Amino acid sequence: MELRCTSAAEVADAIRDMAIRGAPAIGVAAAYGYALAAAHGEDLGDAFERLVRARPTAVNLRWALEEMRLDPSVERARALHEGEVDRCREMARHALELVPRGSRILTHCNTGGLATGGYGTALGAIRAAWEHGLVGQVWVGETRPRLQGARLTAWELETLGIPFAVITDAAAASLMADGDVDCVFTGADRIAANGDTANKIGTYALAIAANHHKLPFYVVAPTSTLDADAETGADIPIEERDPNEVSARFPARNPGFDVTPASMIAAIVTEDGVHRAPYVASLPLRTSIGRR
Amino acid sequence: MELRCTSAAEVADAIRDMAIRGAPAIGVAAAYGYALAAAHGEDLGDAFERLVRARPTAVNLRWALEEMRLDPSVERARALHEGEVDRCREMARHALELVPRGSRILTHCNTGGLATGGYGTALGAIRAAWEHGLVGQVWVGETRPRLQGARLTAWELETLGIPFAVITDAAAASLMADGDVDCVFTGADRIAANGDTANKIGTYALAIAANHHKLPFYVVAPTSTLDADAETGADIPIEERDPNEVSARFPARNPGFDVTPASMIAAIVTEDGVHRAPYVASLPLRTSIGRR
Repeated sequence: MELRCTSAAEVADAIRDMAIRGAPAIGVAAAYGYALAAAHGEDLGDAFERLVRARPTAVNLRWALEEMRLDPSVERARALHEGEVDRCREMARHALELVPRGSRILTHCNTGGLATGGYGTALGAIRAAWEHGLVGQVWVGETRPRLQGARLTAWELETLGIPFAVITDAAAASLMADGDVDCVFTGADRIAANGDTANKIGTYALAIAANHHKLPFYVVAPTSTLDADAETGADIPIEERDPNEVSARFPARNPGFDVTPASMIAAIVTEDGVHRAPYVASLPLRTSIGRR
Repeated sequence: MELRCTSAAEVADAIRDMAIRGAPAIGVAAAYGYALAAAHGEDLGDAFERLVRARPTAVNLRWALEEMRLDPSVERARALHEGEVDRCREMARHALELVPRGSRILTHCNTGGLATGGYGTALGAIRAAWEHGLVGQVWVGETRPRLQGARLTAWELETLGIPFAVITDAAAASLMADGDVDCVFTGADRIAANGDTANKIGTYALAIAANHHKLPFYVVAPTSTLDADAETGADIPIEERDPNEVSARFPARNPGFDVTPASMIAAIVTEDGVHRAPYVASLPLRTSIGRR
């Protein structure tokens, strides 16, 4: 299936409705949307606002749009896209050092090619580790309510020929207790300056369980996901999504993301390398003024 | 909808296919199934085996059938049923002391009238607490893969007029971090002599998260759920269910239950009272020989 967007408004709709999702992918899509607005001679202030408000948590969206403000051309959007793909491959290369041979890796949501416009973040790391013969098994949390794990990640792993099984999100802790998990890899939607990480709802529960079982919990995300302006996770806006995604019949709450404290994260992998706590010192942070 | 079973074999099918579910309810149903077999002059050894094997984890099934072996009459089955209802009301009364006014209680799976043939275990405690004006809000984990929380518990709470919201199982930890949960109440399918408790998959993850946030995690179950012959949780068989319940399209794992260690349980409530660690001393255990 192909979705063809011919204006910034259509791109914004596609991002809000999650036809395009995954932090790096929505940044790239927004960049193309902004370039479309520029090519059509639309009001670029309007286009910026419409796109940046499509979803609140992933900072890649704002990052990409701020980049595009400097040069709103299709060429710039394409370069930004290619940059994200390059960053994925670099991250995957750095992450190899974290994966012992035979690792049984648990992951959550979808962080592969479908989410990133390229090679993937956490799933890119898993893919590279598999290609280096390091992966024994992948456990995929189904990722309720939208089932990105059971639908998208499972499909990508099948396509790549990597051995995997889907589990319910709540079964992960039990597999850890049984000794069937060696480490956890997830992506991120926004990382604060201190390393606190917002990611798909359910990530925090996995981090608590991993820490309880003394298993390393890793985050893989490009520097476009870092937000130097957010001091801690408390500064990250968490999207509250439609309760109908959880229950169409009964009252429901549906936070789209949660925040995993830096203290629970064994390492954050960016295209610059493997960063360890204290993250405020180790992360390659750029303030909004000095952003490259 | 009504399901009419006219033989032990049909009752066993209804239990295995989860038309009847919930540890106390399947015990009661098995008792009636055994009484049917006796009334029809069927081989009672066969009936016992067929019913006891329908599902492996909930010990109430074996308990009820062993009771029925002593007196396989419909009257005995009815007495056993009424006994479970009485036990629920006693548990709910004891549990009141654990619920401060205004409590926001998280629960999992379904432990109400639909699961117990009567008033409910954990949900019975919540219901009694609500009737005493102690409940501010109930959070219901949807309980993947079969959604007993989102379908059954939500329906029971709506019927009872208790304020609630359904959440994805993996969102519970995030609500705890936000300070929106005061305590957790769940039922049990089997409790070992040391207090280790098998319950619906996802319970263990909730216990880890509750302990991490220093919130009390309570188990409510009748003494028919205690298994004095299981020394610890390692002695409890865990049902591996059809992977198709998790994913019909991709490989999946589907453990039906997990084990929460006694050390994470703040109290276990039975009809005899509120029991605290060390459970091997405080639980009203009866060995298989001396069972009442």
